[in-house]
Amino acid sequence: MRYEELTIEGRNAVLEAFRAGKTIDKLFILDGCQDGPIRTILREAKKSDTIINFVKKDRLDQMSETGKHQGVIAYAAAYEYGTIEEMLAKAEEKGEAPFLILLDNIEDPHNLGSIIRTANQAGAHGVIIPKRRAVGLTTTVAKASAGAINYTPVAKVTNLVRTMEELKEKGMWFVCGDMDGESMYSMDLTGPMGVVIGNEGDGVSRLVKENCDFVARIPMFGDIDSLNASVAMGVLSYEIVRQRLNKADR
Amino acid sequence: MRYEELTIEGRNAVLEAFRAGKTIDKLFILDGCQDGPIRTILREAKKSDTIINFVKKDRLDQMSETGKHQGVIAYAAAYEYGTIEEMLAKAEEKGEAPFLILLDNIEDPHNLGSIIRTANQAGAHGVIIPKRRAVGLTTTVAKASAGAINYTPVAKVTNLVRTMEELKEKGMWFVCGDMDGESMYSMDLTGPMGVVIGNEGDGVSRLVKENCDFVARIPMFGDIDSLNASVAMGVLSYEIVRQRLNKADR
Repeated sequence: MRYEELTIEGRNAVLEAFRAGKTIDKLFILDGCQDGPIRTILREAKKSDTIINFVKKDRLDQMSETGKHQGVIAYAAAYEYGTIEEMLAKAEEKGEAPFLILLDNIEDPHNLGSIIRTANQAGAHGVIIPKRRAVGLTTTVAKASAGAINYTPVAKVTNLVRTMEELKEKGMWFVCGDMDGESMYSMDLTGPMGVVIGNEGDGVSRLVKENCDFVARIPMFGDIDSLNASVAMGVLSYEIVRQRLNKADR
Repeated sequence: MRYEELTIEGRNAVLEAFRAGKTIDKLFILDGCQDGPIRTILREAKKSDTIINFVKKDRLDQMSETGKHQGVIAYAAAYEYGTIEEMLAKAEEKGEAPFLILLDNIEDPHNLGSIIRTANQAGAHGVIIPKRRAVGLTTTVAKASAGAINYTPVAKVTNLVRTMEELKEKGMWFVCGDMDGESMYSMDLTGPMGVVIGNEGDGVSRLVKENCDFVARIPMFGDIDSLNASVAMGVLSYEIVRQRLNKADR
């Protein structure tokens, strides 16, 4: 994956980006490089909890667009991230039970964008993605979100399981979509809910799944394995919408 | 849009493709070209109801990969199309009410592939697309369908409205997704049903919408216009799945 328009190369440029408070999705440093400026960059990166990758010169050369990376390349987010606090505040302000979407390593930027779009339309208060491995907020994501990225906050967390544990203490429940669960139509999903969507290939990871209160099965009658991740997210989220509307009507 | 691996160029190659019964999605002929071989190709094209485009030499040169188009280029389908009869036969064989998906000019091959995938999983008996303008069965579509293209038939029709009229005579009902409809949760969608999904930008066209028995609104609470077409199709199709399962339980 490349964030073409947001690759920052060279020591000064990367350091300035950190100091300007720009969100750096990923930092690539030449393996073994230990001089003063690099150490300063590493310090800034640790301060802001950025994922750091130490890589060989070949890799940096390949990633570089200018050919002048000086041992450091940063991938910056095209859009600013939000916070979970702001999502919960929004729910409270609207008098709604929190409705969050958690993505367990979605890798395809079109899927991420489409999920942010659906989250916005389904009335979810935000989308939570893990820092490591998952795709960041690139312009491809923004385009696929059809502008929803400007309205629905996306927060990045270091550890999805820990975040779930913290949110559980605040009274939230979690449901993940998985083939070996109970039918989603037979569950009560009207409470304060986080919907967990797994990776395109591997589904929801074991630890995350174990931390879910509900494992929901979308009924499938087909000859293939699964639904597209953003479609599965839409179907599961709209079952929550249906149940909430239904409950409000009673 | 390019169907890279399925561009057939030159008079003999195109004529052979027609005679071998290969499905040609689109035929491009040099404007003004009227010699014997071209006339034979046009005759074959009309026999199989292929869309013919007369274009200028510049356009053909641009489309050509070999540089030897001889005034004719054909785009062939990577996968074979099915028929509506076979879809209805499948439904009858399974003892199920027919459940078809109709696409009113979906243009993005990823959306088409994802829709075929969801159609397969939701238990739909087939997908119907119009000949003109819509995307065909390319390898990009096949990939996005996650293999579902090998199981769920896709039929191409000349006129979507006429096909709907014919299917109505066989007892089918049609529902399209549109913002100004009634909530889909308040409709009975358990009968023999065709789900109509509109174009990514323009939604369902006027004539098609007028021919629908139900105009269903997916409740939306967001700040943007609409859902992604393949997500909307998934959400609407799964409401049908839910209602059918619910009815079977009673």
